[in-house]
Amino acid sequence: MNLIDFFSYAGTFLFAVSGALAAMEKKLDVFGAFVIALATAVGGGTFRDLLIGKQPVVWLTDTWYLVLVAAAVPVSHIFKGSFQKLRKSMFLFDSMGIGLFTILGMERTLDAGLSPMAAVSMGAVSAVFGGVLRDILCNEIPIIFRKEIYATACIAGGVLYLILESCLEQRSFNMVITVCFITVIRILAVKRRWRLEFR
Amino acid sequence: MNLIDFFSYAGTFLFAVSGALAAMEKKLDVFGAFVIALATAVGGGTFRDLLIGKQPVVWLTDTWYLVLVAAAVPVSHIFKGSFQKLRKSMFLFDSMGIGLFTILGMERTLDAGLSPMAAVSMGAVSAVFGGVLRDILCNEIPIIFRKEIYATACIAGGVLYLILESCLEQRSFNMVITVCFITVIRILAVKRRWRLEFR
Amino acid sequence: MNLIDFFSYAGTFLFAVSGALAAMEKKLDVFGAFVIALATAVGGGTFRDLLIGKQPVVWLTDTWYLVLVAAAVPVSHIFKGSFQKLRKSMFLFDSMGIGLFTILGMERTLDAGLSPMAAVSMGAVSAVFGGVLRDILCNEIPIIFRKEIYATACIAGGVLYLILESCLEQRSFNMVITVCFITVIRILAVKRRWRLEFR
Repeated sequence: MNLIDFFSYAGTFLFAVSGALAAMEKKLDVFGAFVIALATAVGGGTFRDLLIGKQPVVWLTDTWYLVLVAAAVPVSHIFKGSFQKLRKSMFLFDSMGIGLFTILGMERTLDAGLSPMAAVSMGAVSAVFGGVLRDILCNEIPIIFRKEIYATACIAGGVLYLILESCLEQRSFNMVITVCFITVIRILAVKRRWRLEFR
Repeated sequence: MNLIDFFSYAGTFLFAVSGALAAMEKKLDVFGAFVIALATAVGGGTFRDLLIGKQPVVWLTDTWYLVLVAAAVPVSHIFKGSFQKLRKSMFLFDSMGIGLFTILGMERTLDAGLSPMAAVSMGAVSAVFGGVLRDILCNEIPIIFRKEIYATACIAGGVLYLILESCLEQRSFNMVITVCFITVIRILAVKRRWRLEFR
Repeated sequence: MNLIDFFSYAGTFLFAVSGALAAMEKKLDVFGAFVIALATAVGGGTFRDLLIGKQPVVWLTDTWYLVLVAAAVPVSHIFKGSFQKLRKSMFLFDSMGIGLFTILGMERTLDAGLSPMAAVSMGAVSAVFGGVLRDILCNEIPIIFRKEIYATACIAGGVLYLILESCLEQRSFNMVITVCFITVIRILAVKRRWRLEFR
């Protein structure tokens, strides 16, 4: 297993936990928690793969995704209390996951022969669409439309990655820089309550 | 027309009626009723076909699906009173439809060369996603996340079907057993108020 | 750039403006406004392309779509006041856009070798699904299910277009007639408060 796969699985698990925790707040049953965990974890990548035409989607061919999501539901249940104490680290991992999903989405889109602009869009879609689905399924206005600027951070990070890729040969270095950039932007945005107001 | 096609059309019609009745409760117009009937009837199969990459989706190539849904709208309107008296039989047919859609979804997924675990997931998606769409379009938290355990019944039925298929040669026998199993589980679940609580 | 492309871009821009204005009413941030503008403008065509299996979707291969949507957001913000005065002309352009998207969707579906009935359905989907998405993202029951009969107008227009195409050779003439027909029906429907009641 290489580093990208590892981060990909880790991101999937973390997003699944975030979905399962949201489902528990809404008092859904175990099946509902699993579905919302799955939608949160693989929703972004699935939507991207449908748009660029890469089917069957990855979680149907690589069984690890379903296993990780299935594991995330009892884990969320058992460690519910600890996760609330761990909220800060969770937020850090979540932000890292978003950064990584941005890059994975971009790479997959560029692989399909699409333009850099399409890649940036699909990077952002991969990173944030899972959370949008989670909120729609829980019948709320998606949080990304109301708070935080983290989708904007994904787009900025995507542009940075494209620039780095055109200048430097070291892909893994470029990835690390981009993930750090997105993570830092998002944390600053939340801490300092940055908003892109629009009235 | 073989037995599978017959059940497939029958299931489509019954789900369309359930969608049209939901639309009438929300006082939508005829077009709204048609769209919600269509989403309820073909939503599960459509979503499955997008995920596994079988396009164009079946209701665009086999005209019967649109005809059946179009017929279900006036039929629901005319027989609205009777359907409410028939509620128990409706529920029985609905449960049978869910059982059958589970198997049809699994067969289609296995045909596409995917794994048994993917087949079980896609069987459940085929059976329940139409109802999820209906509830989202009517702006409610999908009922499967709040009540009943019928998606879980689809998954249990899917696993049973895989076991039967690996042991017995008689496909139609296996299908009948599985449909009965899912139907009985679902009816028991509703009657005895089984819930998979998760707090 | 031929006439069809021109109308296609014009329709995209107008729908994007309608999405951005809806986002501003909900006080979403710039990113939210962009996403809802994008969903409104390309949602119908994207859903159609997924169903008929034409991927990657057009706005990933033709950069103009993303550029037009990105431009629509600040334009909506700046000319917000004027747009409200221009409401009547907006409504006219919007209706024309719907008429044109109906025809574009039908042509693309017929090109994919599908039946006339499938083409009429996909024409209506192309025209109205963007608005449905906009309303779902803003957490409202889609307006097409509650008011107006404009989806019905798209279907009637689609049937008219098929009849014209089978009788007359002049495609551009047929298109203009159909767009006028859909526009007039929709305007009459709103002015005279036509409803297809269903109780």
